[in-house]
Amino acid sequence: MIVVVRADAPQSEVEKLKENLIKRGMEINFSKGVDHIVMGLIGDTRSVDLDSIASNEIVEKVLRVQEPYKKANRLFHPEDSVFEVDGRKIGGSAFSVIAGPCSVESEEQVISVAKSVKASGASFLRGGAFKPRTSPYSFQGMGLDGLELLKLARKETGLPIVSEIMSTDVLDAFVEDVDIIQVGARSMQNFVLLKELGKCNKPVMIKRGLAATIEEWIMSAEYVMKEGNDRVILCERGIRTFETFTRNTLDLSAIPAVKKKSHLPVFVDPSHSTGMWWMVEPMAKAALAAGADGLMIEVHNSPEDALCDGAQSLKPEKFDQLMKVLKKYAQIEGKVIG
Amino acid sequence: MIVVVRADAPQSEVEKLKENLIKRGMEINFSKGVDHIVMGLIGDTRSVDLDSIASNEIVEKVLRVQEPYKKANRLFHPEDSVFEVDGRKIGGSAFSVIAGPCSVESEEQVISVAKSVKASGASFLRGGAFKPRTSPYSFQGMGLDGLELLKLARKETGLPIVSEIMSTDVLDAFVEDVDIIQVGARSMQNFVLLKELGKCNKPVMIKRGLAATIEEWIMSAEYVMKEGNDRVILCERGIRTFETFTRNTLDLSAIPAVKKKSHLPVFVDPSHSTGMWWMVEPMAKAALAAGADGLMIEVHNSPEDALCDGAQSLKPEKFDQLMKVLKKYAQIEGKVIG
Amino acid sequence: MIVVVRADAPQSEVEKLKENLIKRGMEINFSKGVDHIVMGLIGDTRSVDLDSIASNEIVEKVLRVQEPYKKANRLFHPEDSVFEVDGRKIGGSAFSVIAGPCSVESEEQVISVAKSVKASGASFLRGGAFKPRTSPYSFQGMGLDGLELLKLARKETGLPIVSEIMSTDVLDAFVEDVDIIQVGARSMQNFVLLKELGKCNKPVMIKRGLAATIEEWIMSAEYVMKEGNDRVILCERGIRTFETFTRNTLDLSAIPAVKKKSHLPVFVDPSHSTGMWWMVEPMAKAALAAGADGLMIEVHNSPEDALCDGAQSLKPEKFDQLMKVLKKYAQIEGKVIG
Amino acid sequence: MIVVVRADAPQSEVEKLKENLIKRGMEINFSKGVDHIVMGLIGDTRSVDLDSIASNEIVEKVLRVQEPYKKANRLFHPEDSVFEVDGRKIGGSAFSVIAGPCSVESEEQVISVAKSVKASGASFLRGGAFKPRTSPYSFQGMGLDGLELLKLARKETGLPIVSEIMSTDVLDAFVEDVDIIQVGARSMQNFVLLKELGKCNKPVMIKRGLAATIEEWIMSAEYVMKEGNDRVILCERGIRTFETFTRNTLDLSAIPAVKKKSHLPVFVDPSHSTGMWWMVEPMAKAALAAGADGLMIEVHNSPEDALCDGAQSLKPEKFDQLMKVLKKYAQIEGKVIG
Repeated sequence: MIVVVRADAPQSEVEKLKENLIKRGMEINFSKGVDHIVMGLIGDTRSVDLDSIASNEIVEKVLRVQEPYKKANRLFHPEDSVFEVDGRKIGGSAFSVIAGPCSVESEEQVISVAKSVKASGASFLRGGAFKPRTSPYSFQGMGLDGLELLKLARKETGLPIVSEIMSTDVLDAFVEDVDIIQVGARSMQNFVLLKELGKCNKPVMIKRGLAATIEEWIMSAEYVMKEGNDRVILCERGIRTFETFTRNTLDLSAIPAVKKKSHLPVFVDPSHSTGMWWMVEPMAKAALAAGADGLMIEVHNSPEDALCDGAQSLKPEKFDQLMKVLKKYAQIEGKVIG
Repeated sequence: MIVVVRADAPQSEVEKLKENLIKRGMEINFSKGVDHIVMGLIGDTRSVDLDSIASNEIVEKVLRVQEPYKKANRLFHPEDSVFEVDGRKIGGSAFSVIAGPCSVESEEQVISVAKSVKASGASFLRGGAFKPRTSPYSFQGMGLDGLELLKLARKETGLPIVSEIMSTDVLDAFVEDVDIIQVGARSMQNFVLLKELGKCNKPVMIKRGLAATIEEWIMSAEYVMKEGNDRVILCERGIRTFETFTRNTLDLSAIPAVKKKSHLPVFVDPSHSTGMWWMVEPMAKAALAAGADGLMIEVHNSPEDALCDGAQSLKPEKFDQLMKVLKKYAQIEGKVIG
Repeated sequence: MIVVVRADAPQSEVEKLKENLIKRGMEINFSKGVDHIVMGLIGDTRSVDLDSIASNEIVEKVLRVQEPYKKANRLFHPEDSVFEVDGRKIGGSAFSVIAGPCSVESEEQVISVAKSVKASGASFLRGGAFKPRTSPYSFQGMGLDGLELLKLARKETGLPIVSEIMSTDVLDAFVEDVDIIQVGARSMQNFVLLKELGKCNKPVMIKRGLAATIEEWIMSAEYVMKEGNDRVILCERGIRTFETFTRNTLDLSAIPAVKKKSHLPVFVDPSHSTGMWWMVEPMAKAALAAGADGLMIEVHNSPEDALCDGAQSLKPEKFDQLMKVLKKYAQIEGKVIG
Repeated sequence: MIVVVRADAPQSEVEKLKENLIKRGMEINFSKGVDHIVMGLIGDTRSVDLDSIASNEIVEKVLRVQEPYKKANRLFHPEDSVFEVDGRKIGGSAFSVIAGPCSVESEEQVISVAKSVKASGASFLRGGAFKPRTSPYSFQGMGLDGLELLKLARKETGLPIVSEIMSTDVLDAFVEDVDIIQVGARSMQNFVLLKELGKCNKPVMIKRGLAATIEEWIMSAEYVMKEGNDRVILCERGIRTFETFTRNTLDLSAIPAVKKKSHLPVFVDPSHSTGMWWMVEPMAKAALAAGADGLMIEVHNSPEDALCDGAQSLKPEKFDQLMKVLKKYAQIEGKVIG
């Protein structure tokens, strides 16, 4: 950590600050320039509060050098994280495709979509049972009944299930029924939920919040990992920017960025980010090319009748074509789909 | 709702779409231009899903005319909402100042700050017991013990308490102990929490999410109001933009914007938004001038030792000076502080 | 264009607005709902000012249906634009790579880089002679002398030259010496410059402004095309968002977005957008996969000594490796590099 | 400047970097932590290129301590800049109101508006002669004829004129005819224009670019000041964010931020930023309360017929009411309007 102090600060104030920092266990290295004094703090500064130092009137800036995360940090874990979910590999040479409807709507719908995405080569089935909706008047998902239908589809197809959890009160059901527990963008900083997920023995996929920096996103993984759960996937799904043509702006540079800073696998959701089905194919290919470890794609047999997010869903035939192209791309990258 | 279709769409597809919309209870008004057909949908379109209409390949755009909220909508409730909390008026001619430390740290601290902000004219005491922190290694708040200390401070000073709730599992304690339950920016779209707060008989203050549009923010109020709880305050606390000089960008135009669309009272938090104590005074005055109904300000007796967010806390003397200026401004606006 | 009026507006005001619109040559289609009156305006509304209609107190919203651009609009020009620059094809099945140093620094540097990028398969040589720099104390480019060095490099290698113009006073030199005139992100809305470029007979490449929407970007192309110059390339180079890890956020979804709305070729600059050389490869591949028609990449023989933007420059060997992978990707997409 | 190097970097590479920096005239202070080596660079680093240092593979981060501006820096000029324009004071205890139409449209219009804003207490007349418009099909302003009409209005009322320049080719006319030359948001980084303005003897008002950080904005002032022109005003006019309710997001925290870093006067344009006339009053008051030195407000006698930006223009009566309230606010702040 680096603390920048104005060169004209009273010597007594500088001394007081220095003692205060030493008291917190820091070793300090001084460097006096013309306009500023730069203090380099040596020691584990992860739990030191930047703000309380910055509140000192003589301090101009506080800069962090050390990343605030440990378990998710590639510095301390140089190899990529690779793990298994129900016998399917995530990360490394595996490229995983999670596909299925935005919401679970009926047995017929979920089983029909599950069969078709399996036939096209998807590795996991997605389906929303609890749906976070901006409006209280919109369809809120089938709830636990939705999980039951997903289990039927899993039984039928063998595809492991990915579904979103919104609150801790249904955690037991998710741990019991679901294969990868998804934390939605709006819950990325639901820290109570993250801590509980850290205590369970299920892989967790954390979507990036709409306004989350890459560092904050990794910190949410750190919340889960700190409690002992190492099987965490990060999923980019678009950030909120000024551009309104797309629903959100898919930040594919987040893939190499996360991979530089962390060892965790990174997935991409091209459906939610763009909000338009005809953008899913180019963005899915681009995600693979940029180094993603997997994709999460919405597929619906009848998007016009979908109870939510129809505009971004692919029809099964389009998904099938997409998978064919993805396989070619995967080959160039030395990865295997499925 | 308005649906824009390309003029070269096959007639049969247009007919199918038309029937589909009529089936959903809409009346349709056609307007055919050179390049586009514009369909005006008449009826209650609040529960109609834009996306499922947009997924139709002949549809170019879907535009909503009607606001998606009812209870919070000024159109159906033209008068400002004014209500009481423990005998203190919120909204209308009242200008309320909520002040206190970011986190509750000790009995001495909270009581000392409470007494001093009361003496300066604050109407409510704030204090965080459960703290949402980006890092799992940062201080997470005193929890229920913190609420106990706030109650002691209330007993001592008579100031009603405002504190942030992070999850439903402590809702009973909050309903029992706290006078205004605060929903933090990160929880603004924790819909499970909002629904539960809608069922309790306590005023709720909803902070604006970092990436929340004004419409989404009002929709979060609608979640609470739909369940029967009408005492909702909206609190602007800065949005995330590209500017990094301030922690967030305080959007004061949100005050007249919300007041145009909704009848709910609007507060402003100049401490969290800017992240710097020396910006609190100018932004607090500006908020009052722009029409806010109240402020939430961090005050700490010793910001350098604060366990969180010291940089943005005012010392009691500075808070006292600020209150003196605010009173002059309030007078011009015909409002009464406290 | 759609004008939404409150249903409780005085009839006389509605009539006045209606007459005003008819006077401007519009035909109006009325649709009266419970809360709103929706007026659909039929006719060429491109020159109608939204704002002057919105200023009417009874108007709630004005929504544009028609795109404000004609010449750049795919609706009126369904086929992709494909054109030639010095015998090299741009667009269609061609995938063009523009490579070279950020700034021209010396004869030795520019010729050495030009030879090496040519050997690796680049089709065009880039090099900045006039450099827009945030600081007046930074190196501002070699100016016209820089153009002379680029011409030497062209003579030596046969590679056509791409260079950025900052003002109209050097337009004659650019028309004379440069093969594709580049408009930088900061000049995207320098309308005086755009109009002049529209009058010259040289291809123009317009970089997207940091805060430009896709529509505004296409409108800048329209400025050039309106004056008669049809050879316009759009180049995505990252937009400004809250994320600070990358210099800007590369918006690859802009590629399919522009291609949906316009027939113009779209290039991508992965160097400036990310600001880090190790992100260039993944983002270049992703751009090709997402449908781009070309890339603009910074290559420097000695990035540590570069007078500007060294951090984002590839060394020649890394560029060579990148070109090898790009050829494989191009093959899948049925495109030819060079 | 601070350079952060990974602790595991080869010693030879660290030495090479060190020598390179010393060669550039820097003195270096070393501080070795567990994971990182921190180098503090002492000396004038304003012309050192961050990027070329960051391009070194062993470098993790480069952080600037010193502000990159000198002439505009409050550190070297602690007192507020106060200067005169045609006998009217700008800055200090003066609060200046610039008012008038968005575009000059006719003699009658500009003289009528000029008289009315003068009667209400405005100090300067604004009027656009050259208009930067997103669309080439929109009204582009009256050009030099517009300047002539402004001069007539000045003769009639005595109000000095503020008008926007878009390119250097009309600079002579502006220097001759206009009292404050305005640089629009889109031209904030038109460095060729800024340099020329630095050489002329007229005050310059620089609007903040839509995506400009506070530092970049001050750097644009530095461009003008470096050439010898010290009379620079900065004008906040809203930044581009994700919020679409307002046209832009007015960043009033920019006022105290600029005042902390620079001695230059800061104005605010509440008309362009919000895009809606009914937001002008609250935002104008808030700007004064936040410490602004002046306002720029659009007033039009007939907004519905305005050739541009009608929606954001106040009618003369509303402007007159606003001035009355502003006078009360100014009194509290110890400022004098006009």
